[in-house]
Amino acid sequence: MERVSLARRAAGLASSVAAGGHGHGIPFDSGHAFPGLFPDLTPAAALALNQYRSETLQYAARPGLPEMREWIADHMNAEGARVSADGVLMVNGAKHGLELICRVLLDPGDSIVVTAPMYFTAIPIFRSFEIEFVEIGQDDDGIDTEELAAALDRRRRDGRAPPKFIYTVPEFHNPTGLTMPRRRREALLEIARRYGMWIVEDSPYRAIRFEGSPDLPLLALDGGENVIHVGTFSKLLAPGVRVGWVTAPRDMLARMIQLKSDGGSSALLQRIVLEWLKAGNLPAHLDQAKRTYRAHRDHMVAALRRDLPQVSFRVPEGGYYIWLALPREVDADEFARRAAKAEVIVIPGSKFYAGSGPGYPRNEGPPKNRIRLTYTFTSEEQIDEGLRRLGEVLSSLRAA
Amino acid sequence: MERVSLARRAAGLASSVAAGGHGHGIPFDSGHAFPGLFPDLTPAAALALNQYRSETLQYAARPGLPEMREWIADHMNAEGARVSADGVLMVNGAKHGLELICRVLLDPGDSIVVTAPMYFTAIPIFRSFEIEFVEIGQDDDGIDTEELAAALDRRRRDGRAPPKFIYTVPEFHNPTGLTMPRRRREALLEIARRYGMWIVEDSPYRAIRFEGSPDLPLLALDGGENVIHVGTFSKLLAPGVRVGWVTAPRDMLARMIQLKSDGGSSALLQRIVLEWLKAGNLPAHLDQAKRTYRAHRDHMVAALRRDLPQVSFRVPEGGYYIWLALPREVDADEFARRAAKAEVIVIPGSKFYAGSGPGYPRNEGPPKNRIRLTYTFTSEEQIDEGLRRLGEVLSSLRAA
Repeated sequence: MERVSLARRAAGLASSVAAGGHGHGIPFDSGHAFPGLFPDLTPAAALALNQYRSETLQYAARPGLPEMREWIADHMNAEGARVSADGVLMVNGAKHGLELICRVLLDPGDSIVVTAPMYFTAIPIFRSFEIEFVEIGQDDDGIDTEELAAALDRRRRDGRAPPKFIYTVPEFHNPTGLTMPRRRREALLEIARRYGMWIVEDSPYRAIRFEGSPDLPLLALDGGENVIHVGTFSKLLAPGVRVGWVTAPRDMLARMIQLKSDGGSSALLQRIVLEWLKAGNLPAHLDQAKRTYRAHRDHMVAALRRDLPQVSFRVPEGGYYIWLALPREVDADEFARRAAKAEVIVIPGSKFYAGSGPGYPRNEGPPKNRIRLTYTFTSEEQIDEGLRRLGEVLSSLRAA
Repeated sequence: MERVSLARRAAGLASSVAAGGHGHGIPFDSGHAFPGLFPDLTPAAALALNQYRSETLQYAARPGLPEMREWIADHMNAEGARVSADGVLMVNGAKHGLELICRVLLDPGDSIVVTAPMYFTAIPIFRSFEIEFVEIGQDDDGIDTEELAAALDRRRRDGRAPPKFIYTVPEFHNPTGLTMPRRRREALLEIARRYGMWIVEDSPYRAIRFEGSPDLPLLALDGGENVIHVGTFSKLLAPGVRVGWVTAPRDMLARMIQLKSDGGSSALLQRIVLEWLKAGNLPAHLDQAKRTYRAHRDHMVAALRRDLPQVSFRVPEGGYYIWLALPREVDADEFARRAAKAEVIVIPGSKFYAGSGPGYPRNEGPPKNRIRLTYTFTSEEQIDEGLRRLGEVLSSLRAA
């Protein structure tokens, strides 16, 4: 059965449903990793299941394996943070980290600041805590800090409490692909301090940079007083490992550990990841991922310019996504429906707006003509064929 | 480092802190598996990481692997249930299942029925949902259904809503070791139906039966209309695999899937477990676990009769625990403190009472003289030495 599914994928017939996506066809919807990049974890697993058997098959300490937490602290400190191992909590992927942060910080009726558009999987997580979204637009440098400051001033004048935190993806933002430059990061931190709000920095794509040089993470710029950082191996290694982490002040981490009902993230998964890292595999793996994804991005950019010259977009310097602006009169929901009929799966922009806040760009409500394309999961052949079909879809819509 | 820790364990010097326990010494506190029983999962992991690589390293479907859910449905139906694969949700161990059940069913101010004493790790999980505990005592047949019916009638007369669910461990209860006979199970189901309450059946120890014959699970007796079942591989295979499951009506499962913020339990862990099961390893592994744990129990029972003839207890027919009644005048908290000084770690009974409800046995408040001993994790040598020391501790307390 699995053989068949591998063969279908190789033949460019991947089912997006099988991959956890939204329909059958060429899956430009998916944040999945490219299957050709999956590393061989067998040696690390053999170590984990033999030398470390009494650690990996037993209940684990809730905060995570000490050696794993050390590795992560070193990894983050190499980028300017000042984190110690006991300031790191292991979780089952970044989404689990977001949930624990919400459980510690939020009460029903609270508000949080998000970007418009935003990472759409986080919307139902946040919404389940019965909070209000304060949606802030973005310019080319990421979240619009002037708009944010104005919204917060307005709330203050109205006698309302400041939002509990600002949720942001500062590198290769999902879905826009935007990266905040240093000056914008500092402006955001200044606002967070002024209003006594946390920043939740969710940075899964940071290591997937194709060109340009990175700015310091918000955590590093801040020192950890106002920033809670969420990290994950989903994009460093593979999504299936379900190993992520949170850094936060000690008292907040202690509360999260109490709430970790699953009794500790799997020591087996942590140990497999750790032995793979200790064997020195990460740099070559990341190089290969970046080479592959850069080629996919370049391929998609060329195909877009060839087959959809009417759309505009910024070329992202890294990450997984291209955020398209279709011609103004085109409804992206209808475009996505027609694309699905042509067996190309894309996500219309409307899915990326939390939709309950006041702060849309220029107060016009969410734009109707946006589409997110993912270039990572699909092969170059799928990208060519998929964009050719999307070009036809766009023509059919404009002819209608 | 790991070598050293294995060596220390083999030498009977296991640290209960290292094992996630409560102090240094002989760990009679721990629900851990006996390390000598850990199976070799390397072949299953090699399959999972090679043949199934594109499944196991990718994001997983949130409900779990279809084949895993099929196996679990078959496993439960072999014991009289009528569950289909899509009525099974994979979770990160039983505690994660309990949390999802709470998130779906509970609002602040609700009440739930628990036993007094109860599984102590569940207390903070339930408490975090800001509910009231309705604590019901147990006799030799488990939860006292007459006391329960009386408490519910009282609430009804007071115009109060019935509790949302009854939480119960019907086999080899933690900490009492009690198993509910069929008649008691039927009485409990009848009460749940009459008051429109769910039963949450948490049954991790069911397969660890040394003698006697099992009764049908509550889920099988009920048909699934009133019973939500929580299962786990922690005691079937090893705690470290963090693979558990929940069965519930479809609409409730759908809501739990929405709330599974971790994006699906690890497909890698599920696939490792599944390949290990498909290779036919479970029966021999369970036989060995039962043989080992029966020997440990017999050893502990003999040592108790030899070194602490003053204590009373029921010999459990399976599971992990013996629930001791010390002589009435002995305070178990003080006993546990003195035991810890003698490097024997036991958990005083006071930890197993949720402590906020009205329903203690005979309205006397929680008994002060109970101790839970675990016989599974420790070696026979540790059991002998540990009980010898506990005998001295008891003598010193009675002499004082």
